Amino acid sequence: MFESVELGQQVDKQEYKEAIAQLRTQLITAQIACQKAPGPIILLISGMDGAGKGELVNALGDMLDMRNVVIQTFWDTSDEEQQRPDHWRFWRAMPKRGQIGIFFGAWYTDPMRRYVEGQADEIALEHDMRRIVRLEKMLADDHAVILKFWFHLSAETQKQKHQKLKKKHKESPEMIKRAMWHFDHYSRIRDAAEQSIRHTDRAQARWYLIDASHKRHRHLRVFTILNKALQICTEQNHSPLVADDVIMDVDTAPVLNSVNLNHTLEPDSYHDQLKEYQSRLHRLIWLAYKKRLSTILLFEGWDAAGKGGSIRRVANAMDPRLVQQISIGSPTDEEKDHHYLWRFWRHLPRAGMVTIYDRSWYGRTLVERVEGFAHPAEWHRAYEEINEFEQQLIQAPTLLLKFWLHIDQDEQLRRFKEREVTPWKQHKITDDDWRNREKWADYERAINETVSRTSTREAPWQLIAANDKKFARIAVLRHTVEQLERLLNEVKK
Amino acid sequence: MFESVELGQQVDKQEYKEAIAQLRTQLITAQIACQKAPGPIILLISGMDGAGKGELVNALGDMLDMRNVVIQTFWDTSDEEQQRPDHWRFWRAMPKRGQIGIFFGAWYTDPMRRYVEGQADEIALEHDMRRIVRLEKMLADDHAVILKFWFHLSAETQKQKHQKLKKKHKESPEMIKRAMWHFDHYSRIRDAAEQSIRHTDRAQARWYLIDASHKRHRHLRVFTILNKALQICTEQNHSPLVADDVIMDVDTAPVLNSVNLNHTLEPDSYHDQLKEYQSRLHRLIWLAYKKRLSTILLFEGWDAAGKGGSIRRVANAMDPRLVQQISIGSPTDEEKDHHYLWRFWRHLPRAGMVTIYDRSWYGRTLVERVEGFAHPAEWHRAYEEINEFEQQLIQAPTLLLKFWLHIDQDEQLRRFKEREVTPWKQHKITDDDWRNREKWADYERAINETVSRTSTREAPWQLIAANDKKFARIAVLRHTVEQLERLLNEVKK
Repeated sequence: MFESVELGQQVDKQEYKEAIAQLRTQLITAQIACQKAPGPIILLISGMDGAGKGELVNALGDMLDMRNVVIQTFWDTSDEEQQRPDHWRFWRAMPKRGQIGIFFGAWYTDPMRRYVEGQADEIALEHDMRRIVRLEKMLADDHAVILKFWFHLSAETQKQKHQKLKKKHKESPEMIKRAMWHFDHYSRIRDAAEQSIRHTDRAQARWYLIDASHKRHRHLRVFTILNKALQICTEQNHSPLVADDVIMDVDTAPVLNSVNLNHTLEPDSYHDQLKEYQSRLHRLIWLAYKKRLSTILLFEGWDAAGKGGSIRRVANAMDPRLVQQISIGSPTDEEKDHHYLWRFWRHLPRAGMVTIYDRSWYGRTLVERVEGFAHPAEWHRAYEEINEFEQQLIQAPTLLLKFWLHIDQDEQLRRFKEREVTPWKQHKITDDDWRNREKWADYERAINETVSRTSTREAPWQLIAANDKKFARIAVLRHTVEQLERLLNEVKK
Repeated sequence: MFESVELGQQVDKQEYKEAIAQLRTQLITAQIACQKAPGPIILLISGMDGAGKGELVNALGDMLDMRNVVIQTFWDTSDEEQQRPDHWRFWRAMPKRGQIGIFFGAWYTDPMRRYVEGQADEIALEHDMRRIVRLEKMLADDHAVILKFWFHLSAETQKQKHQKLKKKHKESPEMIKRAMWHFDHYSRIRDAAEQSIRHTDRAQARWYLIDASHKRHRHLRVFTILNKALQICTEQNHSPLVADDVIMDVDTAPVLNSVNLNHTLEPDSYHDQLKEYQSRLHRLIWLAYKKRLSTILLFEGWDAAGKGGSIRRVANAMDPRLVQQISIGSPTDEEKDHHYLWRFWRHLPRAGMVTIYDRSWYGRTLVERVEGFAHPAEWHRAYEEINEFEQQLIQAPTLLLKFWLHIDQDEQLRRFKEREVTPWKQHKITDDDWRNREKWADYERAINETVSRTSTREAPWQLIAANDKKFARIAVLRHTVEQLERLLNEVKK
């Protein structure tokens, strides 16, 4: 989930200055207009230690009219607070309609801390998060605009920041101790954050993951998102029941750009590895069958990225009695007559079997979004629906592997042209492919957001560098083999 | 929660015949029109054993065009089903758009059975139910109309039915054994049902509690509700996002009618009991303070039902340092600027203290509903919001006692007139009171529904017969004393 915000994105000084100049006027104008909004605007700031959350609030102070802003930190609970239900302190601090409330951590802090410290397990965390969903829904139904920011740092970046801090605060062992706690618990905190975000990322209260490694970048992201929200807020009509309709489109970080497309593989090495991984895969699939572990491999990717070829290399390694290949095209009439997930539920593998999807339920957030087949509210909702669906698969248990085969535009053009002049490949290139190509940027946005919102701990996306077909095929095979081995070790006979 | 459907309601033969004749044409016409509906219509039939669920389906067969209806029973899971995620069997059986699907128990059966048999605890049951909420939301978002029926029998009625069954099936020990299981587990099943219904009663998938003691009544209720749903369905426009807006108004059973208003209390007995209960209450409130158990007493009732007098009798028994009285009138400007529950969160008692509410958050589903101050979607949503809010109070822990002081229209008229001629009571009667009185029937509906949807195991409504003021005051005191004693025994020091 956090791959997209570990890119270390930067904004140069001049660009920042110009953007800020523009945003300053827009923000203040919108803020004034928003005082008549039907609900409060709640900014919830969470994130890794050392990610600059405090700095952000200072920066917001420079941008907004602070007379209409309330800032709430929630440290140790007071005596007053301990004597009431958990959420009392948050209700007490709630901004009023038209007001901006900046909350640090708020209702997320305690449940996450309990999980990190081992006082709460995954089920307790989920229970707390579901309760938060209901709180946020209640507020959103009453017209609150809720923006939730997670300021993310990679372990490496946090380490660097902490080392700087250590030097700066040599005389403050308390400060160093606190920093070290966060450092020691990094992976558990990351885990808590991922689960919390997945359970509570809802259309009415979205999480925005912020790459917090550089100050100008993270500030600009927050200001831009806040500005968008305030703009919608001022344009919004005041009738009831609008909360669910307000879809705010925010670009997620360009995670696809992080794929290094220069990888290649020599033919000799390719053939050796192909043989090696295919034979291991063959044995593993039989073992999975015996242990009743189902497997789903799901392939998405650009047109001509080589999905078919990769699928064949995987499928050929398996006993055909154990594997079912499903190619997802337009839905049939019968499928259209049901919920969009119905067609995928239909084909779920029996325990121990393998299903390979050539395209998948992600059509909802990719092609259906870009082509306008799904209403914005529908594809926005789909992230949580898909996460929920995949969660049930994983509990079955099923090994769910999701591959995005990535190529760049030049490589696609080369392959399209090759298809046009190669007689046995001509059927593979249609006008649709050229049309889709024109929408490259739209698809890129859709993919970045999909990966960012649906890459979960149990079912992360694998972005496969596929400019070199051989490299891509081996990457897919290797990952499949490794994950099967890992999970088969975990599953009890 | 089930008081409202343990009234043993009956419909006479002639009335039934006429109603059926009318409904038959309406239903079939609506069913045909609904074939173009944007989603399926799902009827979920659950309830107590012996409540006539099977009979209902046969009766539906006489009323509907069964070519467009699918009936799904879910017995033991098949081998095929066991090898997939739990919900697979339901997805597989899902009716298509425009089709009516009649499901027996469906996704509720297994979680409830696990709880009844002690394999799952309350937390596990809640977890399963929250998952069902998400499933039903997903379907409703995709335009499914979901009607959930709980066929209820009181323990007594079930016993009678089972005895008849025993005679009828003397030669079938299997049948008798099954009936006895349900009989033995009655209270646990009732408990499971109450919790399940409370967790899953949502505007997009409402539960309809059916008094199932008499056949004609239960059939007529279901047909009427189905007919309403199909009517809405045919009128509904086909744009996306309508699901939440479809508010179906169905009268709940007249639970208020079950209150016996003839109770009276002689002055001597009244004074003795008043003294006795007040002195016990005084001691208990101090004990609760020491044990940090908070108490909330909430009073609702008809105008002139005697709320003030009852509250005084309770409050006078308590040390004033421990008690806070809050009279809820129109919200202040500041309160209007927040969520409607905010004003109640504000005043929550500290641990060990008592708060007495003269009127309460139930204004949302009573006066705000009747007077049109809240949009139908808002007060429909309020049942779950209030249940959630009260749940948090109870967990604090707080003893939450909710009283409805009930009088009949004649008694109210008598009191109004008395107020008009008694100088020191004249200020208590205003034009508003006379206006409210004209809306008696509307308030009655609102109260019946409120009691039915928010009377939970931990915080049941107490309907107090208040035609005789003395009787009412003692009833309130006695209940308060008994509940405090019960809970103080449970709470550890």
